[in-house]
Amino acid sequence: MTDRRGRRGRRPGSSDTRQEILVAAREAFATAGYDATTIRRIAIAAQVDAALIHHYFGTKEQLFLAAVQFPLNPVDLIEKITTGPPESLGERLADTFLSAWDHPETGPVLAALLRGALTDRLSGRLVQEFFARQIAQRVGERLADLVDRDEVPARVTLAASQLFGLALLRYILRFEPLASLPHEVVVATVAPTLQRYLTGDSDR
Amino acid sequence: MTDRRGRRGRRPGSSDTRQEILVAAREAFATAGYDATTIRRIAIAAQVDAALIHHYFGTKEQLFLAAVQFPLNPVDLIEKITTGPPESLGERLADTFLSAWDHPETGPVLAALLRGALTDRLSGRLVQEFFARQIAQRVGERLADLVDRDEVPARVTLAASQLFGLALLRYILRFEPLASLPHEVVVATVAPTLQRYLTGDSDR
Repeated sequence: MTDRRGRRGRRPGSSDTRQEILVAAREAFATAGYDATTIRRIAIAAQVDAALIHHYFGTKEQLFLAAVQFPLNPVDLIEKITTGPPESLGERLADTFLSAWDHPETGPVLAALLRGALTDRLSGRLVQEFFARQIAQRVGERLADLVDRDEVPARVTLAASQLFGLALLRYILRFEPLASLPHEVVVATVAPTLQRYLTGDSDR
Repeated sequence: MTDRRGRRGRRPGSSDTRQEILVAAREAFATAGYDATTIRRIAIAAQVDAALIHHYFGTKEQLFLAAVQFPLNPVDLIEKITTGPPESLGERLADTFLSAWDHPETGPVLAALLRGALTDRLSGRLVQEFFARQIAQRVGERLADLVDRDEVPARVTLAASQLFGLALLRYILRFEPLASLPHEVVVATVAPTLQRYLTGDSDR
C-alpha cells in the first residue's frame, strides 16, 4: 500500500470515498467534458488526494469508464466492428450492438444507462460525452479513409439514431413484434441502413 | 346540462373529477389494453357515472387520446403520411414525424411523452398501446395492399425504431451534429430507410 492520505478526516480506502470520487468524476466529465477535466480537478471536488484516484481507478480514461459504468470495453467493441471488409461494416456494427443488448449480463446495464440518460441531465451529458469520445471518434477514425472526413460526425450520429431506436423499442419499450424478432433477422434488416449511413453516397 | 349525478359526495364538473377520470383511464388502458377497457370500467374505478365521462370526453377513443395526451390528431397524421404515391411513403413519414418534433408547440409535448414512457411503466404501456392502436394499425391497413399482410407489424415497428431513435438523439439527448442537421437533410437521409422497411423486399 502507498502512503496516500485521506483528507478532512475521511478514511482513505472506504467505499464511501470511492463513491464520492465517482460522483465528482461524473459531475466533472458531464459539465466540463472529457478533455477539460483533470484528475486534479476531480480530486479537489471529492476532497481526496489525486494519488488515491490513480490508485483506485488508474488513468483518467479508466476513471471516465468507471464513472459512466459502461459494461463493456469500448476498444474491444470498436475493434470487433471495424476489423473486416468495409462493405460489411454495417453488419458487424448491428451484430455487435445487438449482441451486447441481447446479452443477459450487459443488456440490463445498458438499459439502465439509457434510462438514466433520459431522466437525469447529468447522466445524459455523460452518455453523450462517452459516445462522442469512446465510440464516435474511434469509428470516425476508421471511416476517414472511406468517406469525406467532414461528413463523418453526421454519418456516425445517423447510424447511432437507428441503433438507439432499436435499443429503445426492442429492449426498453418492448414493442412487438420487434422485441421478439430473431437477432439475425434484425441484424440483416438494419445492416444495410447502417452501411448506407456510414459509407453510402454523400447525398444519401 | 344533463341530470348526471356525482357519487360518494364528489361534485361533478370539478377539475378534480376530470383528473380522476383521466388517471383511471390511463390505468385501465395501460393494464387491460384498449379493446378490453370499457367506459363502465373506468367509471367504476373513478367512482363517477359513465354519462359524466361521455359528457367530458366523448367516445372511448376520444377518452383514450385525452388519457395519452398526444398533442396531434392521429387520423390527420396518418392521412398525411398515406396520401400519395406508395414509393414516397418513407419520405412523407419522415417529413410528418420530424415536423411534429421540430414544431415549437408539439415537440416539447412529444418529448415529455417519450420521457414519461421510459421512466414510468404505466406510461410506457400506454404509449405502446397508443402506437399499436392509433398508428401501427392504421399504417398497416394502408400497407396491406403493398406487402404481405403477415409482415406488416414487423415492418411498422422497424420503421418506428428509426423514427424513435431520431427523436431520442436529435430532440432529447441532442447528439451533435444530428441535432443541428437541417430538417430536409434528415428527411432525405432516413426516407429510403423507412421506405425499405415498409415496402422493400421481404428478405430485406
